[in-house]
Amino acid sequence: MNPLLNPPDSAHPTPAVLIRGTGLLGASIGLGLRRVGDTVYLSDPSPSAQAIACDIGAGVPWEPGTVPDPEIVVVAAPPEASAAEVAQALIDFPDAVVLDIASVKATVRDELRSRAADPRHELQPSMLTRYVGTHPMAGRERSGPVAARGELFTSMPWVICPAIDDSGEHVPERAAVAWAEDIARRLGATIHYLDPDAHDESVALISHLPQIAASMVASRLQDAPTSALALAGNGLRDVTRIAASDPGLWVQILSFNAGPIKEILYGLRDDVLRLISTLEDPLAPGGQADIAQLIAEGNSGQARVPGKHGAPPQSFAVLTVIVDDKPGQIAAVLQDVATVGVNVEDMRMEHSAGHEVGMIELSVLPSRREELASALTEMGWRVAT
Amino acid sequence: MNPLLNPPDSAHPTPAVLIRGTGLLGASIGLGLRRVGDTVYLSDPSPSAQAIACDIGAGVPWEPGTVPDPEIVVVAAPPEASAAEVAQALIDFPDAVVLDIASVKATVRDELRSRAADPRHELQPSMLTRYVGTHPMAGRERSGPVAARGELFTSMPWVICPAIDDSGEHVPERAAVAWAEDIARRLGATIHYLDPDAHDESVALISHLPQIAASMVASRLQDAPTSALALAGNGLRDVTRIAASDPGLWVQILSFNAGPIKEILYGLRDDVLRLISTLEDPLAPGGQADIAQLIAEGNSGQARVPGKHGAPPQSFAVLTVIVDDKPGQIAAVLQDVATVGVNVEDMRMEHSAGHEVGMIELSVLPSRREELASALTEMGWRVAT
Repeated sequence: MNPLLNPPDSAHPTPAVLIRGTGLLGASIGLGLRRVGDTVYLSDPSPSAQAIACDIGAGVPWEPGTVPDPEIVVVAAPPEASAAEVAQALIDFPDAVVLDIASVKATVRDELRSRAADPRHELQPSMLTRYVGTHPMAGRERSGPVAARGELFTSMPWVICPAIDDSGEHVPERAAVAWAEDIARRLGATIHYLDPDAHDESVALISHLPQIAASMVASRLQDAPTSALALAGNGLRDVTRIAASDPGLWVQILSFNAGPIKEILYGLRDDVLRLISTLEDPLAPGGQADIAQLIAEGNSGQARVPGKHGAPPQSFAVLTVIVDDKPGQIAAVLQDVATVGVNVEDMRMEHSAGHEVGMIELSVLPSRREELASALTEMGWRVAT
Repeated sequence: MNPLLNPPDSAHPTPAVLIRGTGLLGASIGLGLRRVGDTVYLSDPSPSAQAIACDIGAGVPWEPGTVPDPEIVVVAAPPEASAAEVAQALIDFPDAVVLDIASVKATVRDELRSRAADPRHELQPSMLTRYVGTHPMAGRERSGPVAARGELFTSMPWVICPAIDDSGEHVPERAAVAWAEDIARRLGATIHYLDPDAHDESVALISHLPQIAASMVASRLQDAPTSALALAGNGLRDVTRIAASDPGLWVQILSFNAGPIKEILYGLRDDVLRLISTLEDPLAPGGQADIAQLIAEGNSGQARVPGKHGAPPQSFAVLTVIVDDKPGQIAAVLQDVATVGVNVEDMRMEHSAGHEVGMIELSVLPSRREELASALTEMGWRVAT
């Protein structure tokens, strides 16, 4: 069956999928697709990574020639290897739709184009109509197939690039895009459409810049005295959490998205230089206004970060409950919250050095806060006033 | 009673406390101290702030001459007003211990010293032995007395500066320090000791730098297309959360701690400039090694951030449960976790655009993870594999 002639429909066909690359993302895609009934084949240049992925149930080893060609090939290779793997898959499987999931999209497209334009390469321009660039925006601080899980993509954005870019070139067949949508949807992801350049500019801002900032802040802590670190609160913990990320992956992401990231770093550099200059003499005329502007601009930007479920940013009311730090306390609070019938929109635990009590901060709709606070207090909970 | 002759003991006397300044922190201290039985008087240059603080029960209005002098004065003024308020309190109440809670400590000390050394000022050097600089490290994204709560300091660090600094000057009486410790302890805080300069260097690193980084990252989002913001995940949300802070307060904090912050910003500036230069040609020799080093240094620094209860950073095992986004689901999960007898060390909810399901990430001791995963699965929960 040529999938280009038979796009997926609402009956959810279960295609044969070959996943090339069985790291965290490839193995997670395999686990998720098997759960919905797909036949999944796996291959990885590392025999041990492939074996682990097969062992955890992400698919069966790909043995060329023993089974019919796959209908979908998902290239789950590191960014620097993605274009070559996509090209090879387009050549190897002349009827298959080929997706990649690299977290940068313009360089992969550019490399595919230049290969297709080069007569020394086997890749033909017409083959590119079967390629769809995608980027599932999910990940973990751990990597490798052992960290894989089928639900990795649940509720997470999955960018699909229909490649409507300036050149008008490389437009995948509609049916190929439909297959990409189908895979993303069956893994529980939320589909977004962006052209490769807009994608790369977007992730430079909302993913790569925060990573760089977190790493640079955390880097300053390397030689900090323990007495300073002992004062760390949720502010520092939040800002530095993603600094635990994998250097090997980020070298590729930052290298391959150098252009858009540089543009953003110019602005960051100017802000840092301006603040240093202001702090030379903060009480000089205009100094305090400069600092106020920096913080106020941060306020404006932060207010634009969407909340839960992509809803417009909403200010939930926060209600704090003090509990002992022992099993069952959080459950008991939430049990009582459920009895009152109030939905918890978000929740965080707060605690700091030395004390064996915790604070649970519940975010709820502002209109329900007072009612919930009264009810919990009546039930005997210590609600912060 | 002169508190200097009668330091607090384990019997927890309940002194009369005057709080000068009824913003978020002053009003919260009042609420917390009244709960443990202290007599609390409040004064604020803003009649409305004072009235609100009194209305919420943080204390009664201070009416000079109608009651005996307070034994403790807590100056809860903005950093720029703290030294003058402390000086005035030391003059007004010749037997009282005077604390301030400004989030920068060296400039307050320096201003007090220069006032005491200046014969035109009423402040005498001997009065400084009744002053103790402190800094309760607690706050909220909201400000003002309406946001106050008595539990604000529970489990949070409270830095006390016994002022052992280079000069050897300004050493408070031991009894004055004991009163400061007593107040912090009765508000549930965890006491840390640092001299003013070490305090300011510490907070520059673990509080002011994260604030600056968060504001600068968030600032870049001001003009971002909505399609980019729609891709935001927990990484961006975490890094920018504190960018919602109050510009007025941060102008003072950054101005008053300019020296230590500048030293740290030099390092940040060098990192930004080096990365920009590397990204000009990331594939040049050494380029990728530079990027790897940036991320690896972030790894090292992040690993030093202490976890819950000031314990050494510990890697908890994370277990993810998928739930419907409706009242009671989280409670039900945690109820079942409690039945198994496993303590939840930390917890976060993850969700993104469009889907009405949520993921609860439970951090538990690694040795209990498998047992909990099996038990929850048996109970019918969808545990991510």
